Amino acid sequence: MEEIKIFCPATIANVSCGFDVLGLALDSVGDIMTVRKSTEEGIRITKISGQELPLETKKNVAGVAGLALLEKSGLKGGFEIEIDKKIKPGSGIGSSAASSAGAVWAMNELLGRPFSKLELVQFAMQGEQLASDVAHADNVAPALFGGFTLVRSYDPLDIVPIPTPDELFATVIHPQIEIKTSDSRKILKTNISLEKGIQQWGNLGGLIAGLFQSDYDLIGRSLEDHIIEPIRSILIPGFDQIKSGAINSGALGCGISGSGPSIFALSKGQDVAETVAQSMDKIYSDVGIPFDIHISKINTKGVKKIA
Amino acid sequence: MEEIKIFCPATIANVSCGFDVLGLALDSVGDIMTVRKSTEEGIRITKISGQELPLETKKNVAGVAGLALLEKSGLKGGFEIEIDKKIKPGSGIGSSAASSAGAVWAMNELLGRPFSKLELVQFAMQGEQLASDVAHADNVAPALFGGFTLVRSYDPLDIVPIPTPDELFATVIHPQIEIKTSDSRKILKTNISLEKGIQQWGNLGGLIAGLFQSDYDLIGRSLEDHIIEPIRSILIPGFDQIKSGAINSGALGCGISGSGPSIFALSKGQDVAETVAQSMDKIYSDVGIPFDIHISKINTKGVKKIA
Repeated sequence: MEEIKIFCPATIANVSCGFDVLGLALDSVGDIMTVRKSTEEGIRITKISGQELPLETKKNVAGVAGLALLEKSGLKGGFEIEIDKKIKPGSGIGSSAASSAGAVWAMNELLGRPFSKLELVQFAMQGEQLASDVAHADNVAPALFGGFTLVRSYDPLDIVPIPTPDELFATVIHPQIEIKTSDSRKILKTNISLEKGIQQWGNLGGLIAGLFQSDYDLIGRSLEDHIIEPIRSILIPGFDQIKSGAINSGALGCGISGSGPSIFALSKGQDVAETVAQSMDKIYSDVGIPFDIHISKINTKGVKKIA
Repeated sequence: MEEIKIFCPATIANVSCGFDVLGLALDSVGDIMTVRKSTEEGIRITKISGQELPLETKKNVAGVAGLALLEKSGLKGGFEIEIDKKIKPGSGIGSSAASSAGAVWAMNELLGRPFSKLELVQFAMQGEQLASDVAHADNVAPALFGGFTLVRSYDPLDIVPIPTPDELFATVIHPQIEIKTSDSRKILKTNISLEKGIQQWGNLGGLIAGLFQSDYDLIGRSLEDHIIEPIRSILIPGFDQIKSGAINSGALGCGISGSGPSIFALSKGQDVAETVAQSMDKIYSDVGIPFDIHISKINTKGVKKIA
């Protein structure tokens, strides 16, 4: 195989009580990438459509992640990458992670899979480092593993795939305002109360148990975040209305996707996810901010070959 | 049925990263209680053997928990309770919880099970309130449900039973020193760093996933607590040696049971649990503090009828 065309899913990180540890992959939102082997050394980004992003390898997350893999592979030669960028940068649904994960997944396929998924996560994290100054794994891990993934630990890196209940759907609204990941980090407090910490790990435990048992009620009860959401939601216009609208429309839970500004809701079944989307649409149409809405099943495969 | 004789298991609360939310029940350590119906109103503690504890109903945790149930039941009449106390009060393996949970479980059986297990937990929590000034559920929940239980939330009370891998054994050493639960609470800080909080919920998520999948390695990697253990372990002589001895003997993890002074280790298989016990025995024999050691399978039934 000399060339591969892939789908790179959008992802939701910081799933409520799973701040910094739990992410999930979407099925119907993502980028398309074409990666081909080249006799020329290094990585070249030959084309980017859909968004304005740097073609220069070391300034592009796919380039940086790809270089990390290339260096470890010992390969003489390199790769060319084309990116059809459907996920808007800065939307909070893992735009940089999709490109980073996609690049290294595709290169690994073309090389005959010398690297494990865990190693691919580590390469892709280099792209995240470029994008947000932090080599976080909570978007690239679900992009590569699919479904829900828990980043149990960074040192050593320990990714735990968590099962996905069949009827789980996500609704995501992306208000087109800009929040920088670095800014949304800065407003967080460095300390939290032990009491809220206990609530949070109780809820994360409940969420993991709910996902293992396809217990939608338990998933819903556990989708709470009393630590990050109250602070960051201030940056997102209409967050409280969107959230109460989603819950009233039957969503299991609703929270900030990544560091925002996108807001996600999880629902049991596509019908509920669509009702939730209508509710979000109405609220943001009234607010008057431009937005996109996505409805998606949870993607249990991660990056995949499409040609 | 007019009378019932029951086994009330000892329990381990604060299972490492599961501080205040995760507990488990032991199989071979527990109290024996006999509870019988009486035409006389109220609860009478007619006999306590094994330990010196108050017979006065309102000063005895079994009495207080029993009264909470009795009041809700609308029963004319009452119960007599005999307790053969094998679990030492103050040992940190749920001595008060065993009596509280046992009393209400037995009464519920004698009344034809009008109450759910969740309601029994709520009654038993009244006994915990008497014992430690806090109506905590992390010992009474596993005592009543068996296995591992997660207290996801107190308001409303939400108990999530978690599956127990077949080969999981606990080794518990009880150094006979006194640490009051209230004192061991006081030394905790009211704030923690967000960074350690994230580690903790990552580990709790990993532990829950490990228990669901019988993934012993993941259980072992997740049995970490960087928040409470470093503070409380100072009160327990030889804690660090016991812990490193247990890990070197093959234990998956080791931590403080409840608020101490008991120390628990979890192991895959009885052989390892016994090797861990030998290591603990040797270390404490050298330290020169009197101690008990228990080796137990995890009890998946909770309180049970024995006659």
